[in-house]
Amino acid sequence: MSLIVMKFGGSSVGTTERMSRVAQRIVDKKLQGDRVVVVVSAMGDTTDDLIDKASEINANPPAREMDMLLTTGEQISVALLSMAIHKLGHEAKSYTGWQAGIVTEATHGKAKISDISPERIFAALDDGNIVIVAGFQGMSEAGEITTLGRGGSDTTAVALAAALKADMCEIYTDVDGIYSTDPRIVKCARKLDEISYDEMLELAHLGAAVLHPRAVEYAKHNKVNLVVRSSFTNNEGTLVREEAEMEQGIVVRGIAADKNVARISVLGVEDTPGVLADMFGALARNDINVDIIVQSGVQDGGADFSFTVSVADRQKALDVLASIKSEVPYREATFEEGLVKVSIVGAGMVSNPGVAAQMFEAISDVGVNIKMVSTSEIKVSCVIAAEPLQDVIRALHTAFGLDTADTAFVGGPSERR
Amino acid sequence: MSLIVMKFGGSSVGTTERMSRVAQRIVDKKLQGDRVVVVVSAMGDTTDDLIDKASEINANPPAREMDMLLTTGEQISVALLSMAIHKLGHEAKSYTGWQAGIVTEATHGKAKISDISPERIFAALDDGNIVIVAGFQGMSEAGEITTLGRGGSDTTAVALAAALKADMCEIYTDVDGIYSTDPRIVKCARKLDEISYDEMLELAHLGAAVLHPRAVEYAKHNKVNLVVRSSFTNNEGTLVREEAEMEQGIVVRGIAADKNVARISVLGVEDTPGVLADMFGALARNDINVDIIVQSGVQDGGADFSFTVSVADRQKALDVLASIKSEVPYREATFEEGLVKVSIVGAGMVSNPGVAAQMFEAISDVGVNIKMVSTSEIKVSCVIAAEPLQDVIRALHTAFGLDTADTAFVGGPSERR
Repeated sequence: MSLIVMKFGGSSVGTTERMSRVAQRIVDKKLQGDRVVVVVSAMGDTTDDLIDKASEINANPPAREMDMLLTTGEQISVALLSMAIHKLGHEAKSYTGWQAGIVTEATHGKAKISDISPERIFAALDDGNIVIVAGFQGMSEAGEITTLGRGGSDTTAVALAAALKADMCEIYTDVDGIYSTDPRIVKCARKLDEISYDEMLELAHLGAAVLHPRAVEYAKHNKVNLVVRSSFTNNEGTLVREEAEMEQGIVVRGIAADKNVARISVLGVEDTPGVLADMFGALARNDINVDIIVQSGVQDGGADFSFTVSVADRQKALDVLASIKSEVPYREATFEEGLVKVSIVGAGMVSNPGVAAQMFEAISDVGVNIKMVSTSEIKVSCVIAAEPLQDVIRALHTAFGLDTADTAFVGGPSERR
Repeated sequence: MSLIVMKFGGSSVGTTERMSRVAQRIVDKKLQGDRVVVVVSAMGDTTDDLIDKASEINANPPAREMDMLLTTGEQISVALLSMAIHKLGHEAKSYTGWQAGIVTEATHGKAKISDISPERIFAALDDGNIVIVAGFQGMSEAGEITTLGRGGSDTTAVALAAALKADMCEIYTDVDGIYSTDPRIVKCARKLDEISYDEMLELAHLGAAVLHPRAVEYAKHNKVNLVVRSSFTNNEGTLVREEAEMEQGIVVRGIAADKNVARISVLGVEDTPGVLADMFGALARNDINVDIIVQSGVQDGGADFSFTVSVADRQKALDVLASIKSEVPYREATFEEGLVKVSIVGAGMVSNPGVAAQMFEAISDVGVNIKMVSTSEIKVSCVIAAEPLQDVIRALHTAFGLDTADTAFVGGPSERR
């Protein structure tokens, strides 16, 4: 008898009718003889509706009270899903995060899970119940209700699977697996049978919204077998695990694009030791996440640097630079928007030199200029102008042999929670 | 410095705008120098909306899951109310029932409070917070989320006031106090300055919906000073306490009517010892609440009984009678609906003989026939035909000197939670 954790996102349970369909799916799993633990997100727009209500009352509500408010969304879901399972004649028990023994740090809005006490879940399973746990939430040691932040329900599912030593953690979503690239852009995108944690992590960070990076990290760290599959079809899905089987001749597994990129250039920086540490230290202290950093060499009058930040952080980064100009002298700071970071990801790159060159060639064949480059063992990223992005992705998809004859299944806009 | 518990019902916080107005009222109280604990119900229609969702999924949902579902309503309220108070620049912390230390029996849907551990509330008050507690809910010893049933938020407020040894428990509602009778029926109804627990208990049981009987019982048992007042005005309200000041010449304090009455008559019951115990024992074992019982004397062929039950229990009561006919033989059982129980309540009755006779006379002057009578030390109830009810109430109101020149303030339909 296997123990399976099944996670359903908000659009999978967006209506009471969908809720009932999900219940049937869970019951089918139980009837196969498995022990089943289910993690659910808030129904469809529930969270947004609650956020709207809060902002009517207080434009800047305390994080503690937002957690108190938003956790009701998942609590409603688990109760209704349990009722739907009872309706099918099976026993089920729903639990909030704190009831399920999910202990988190004491921060609000983006707490990390620090411990899970699975006794109560095991007891309910032993009594023959399907166990339903509210995603996205937990409780601090002091008994405060907390939330895990974006992608929190994925993390709940993976963390529970690890704590329960589950045989499989199944993430049900509105797409039927991980694709070589966004199937809404490239019609002949290839659904991957398998992908490694590291590759998935790169893709998740690069904006493939199917799985949250934190959940993938947690899965990698605890060696949780993950599968991503559709709530609406019985298709096989994509297995995420330690070492993914390499398909014949496929070096690049996936292509991702991140449109949320602004480039900041700092020109004529005085070239003394420690200047880089001072500059990026100041940015880090202000919670600005710097992605790609390029130093374009020392010229007369100092060094030139470029780095990328998210579009939202652009003005803040410029303000920080202005504020430290006396300690870190430079000639001028400029910025550029309308950029995109396109990346190729694949564990096979390590042993295949020339992949980066092949990427540059494909991009230049579309007539696009590369502004910045960054590489890791399993990834090459290029920052380019956002405009001909779809052409670039299609060209890369073809160049790396990823095109398939099938047309991808796309359920709708991706879920993020 | 006084400690005040303020309770606001669902219509008092029915919109985000009303929520903000309630927040101002709470802050004003705090600015007077009081320590303030607030109990809130679910906003307006929230509970009904949740019940509708549940019934779309499962017409007969498990009580445990209904509690899981419905308690989110109050959790949303406390979070939003806390945000509204923060918006006004004051510190507030919201708590669910379990966080506030409210321990209940292990039943779902109508659990009784068994204990309150107020340490966390006191700690938050000591830190200068306004404390906001979700009404209607608690947690069993086993960590299951429970609800207190109808009128549960009133009970939460009174129980908290008792546990915290509060100086006053203020119940804010959509009427501005307890009236001598329903001001929607009698325009010149008199708002009472004071009323005793016992009188209030009788009125509450008789269908005066302002305060739930269980909350009044709890207040009486723990000698909690209660005041019922309007959320929408600054009027004084009605004080509920051990001994109420008697106004000059007023014997009857209030008049109440209960339309939820069905009369069952059992004719020709074999007149042997123990027959009454058998009959009413069987009804009690089937959870049928019997109110007034009248035996109309023994005739040929056995005794005749009449008793009243709620309209919802009528058919069940007849079924029980049919099922015990072999042990408790009788000739026939009939029923009558379209009845109402009208009652006069007043602690002064004890020392004023002739009050019942005065009531019968007033009713007969309207040309109405009295079908059953029941009396207690502070109450006389008559079952009559429902039809000319308003005339009867007006006649009684005048007969017992309760009419006032003022016109009553009525905010809207009464709240029950």
